[in-house]
Amino acid sequence: MSVKLVVLYTQPGDVAGFDEHYLGVHGPLVDKIPGLERWESARVVAAPDGGEQTYYRVAELYFSDPAALEAGLASEEGQATAGDFQAIAPPGSRMFVAAVED
Amino acid sequence: MSVKLVVLYTQPGDVAGFDEHYLGVHGPLVDKIPGLERWESARVVAAPDGGEQTYYRVAELYFSDPAALEAGLASEEGQATAGDFQAIAPPGSRMFVAAVED
Repeated sequence: MSVKLVVLYTQPGDVAGFDEHYLGVHGPLVDKIPGLERWESARVVAAPDGGEQTYYRVAELYFSDPAALEAGLASEEGQATAGDFQAIAPPGSRMFVAAVED
Repeated sequence: MSVKLVVLYTQPGDVAGFDEHYLGVHGPLVDKIPGLERWESARVVAAPDGGEQTYYRVAELYFSDPAALEAGLASEEGQATAGDFQAIAPPGSRMFVAAVED
């Protein structure tokens, strides 16, 4: 069963500074996580339900199964990425593991 | 620029009833939306940040560009899907449009 880490970033105070770090530093850290099959980054542009644009970015990291995700996050590269997340994620940002349905 | 509709469902009171409707009724409605390139459904299984497991499901509907998404949601099939979302989505569920980065 394929799984993904879903990362929801809330709105940063300094959007340009956040993007610069996210794209220039954080992305390359994600790329190095062992066992990562692929990842997708997206920027929220609208909230069609009429609610608040709570999140600024959505990132999803795909792994073949829960064990691969766990090993990837526990690796040195995974820990470096998690540390960088802690450093840049605006308050209220969240992280979930989700089982992908075929 | 590829875009996706990101749908975050909060925890349903009746998980079995929700899943039955979501998989048996809602999914087939999504399948019929014109212009939809693909969609992915995932069930949240953990919150590794130690926070609340706020969401129960994450669905993502992919379109080739913002115009295709808009047309798909405005179509009869899109409106039927939106109506069904209103009927089944637990309070606090959200919907965002996100620009997918290559």
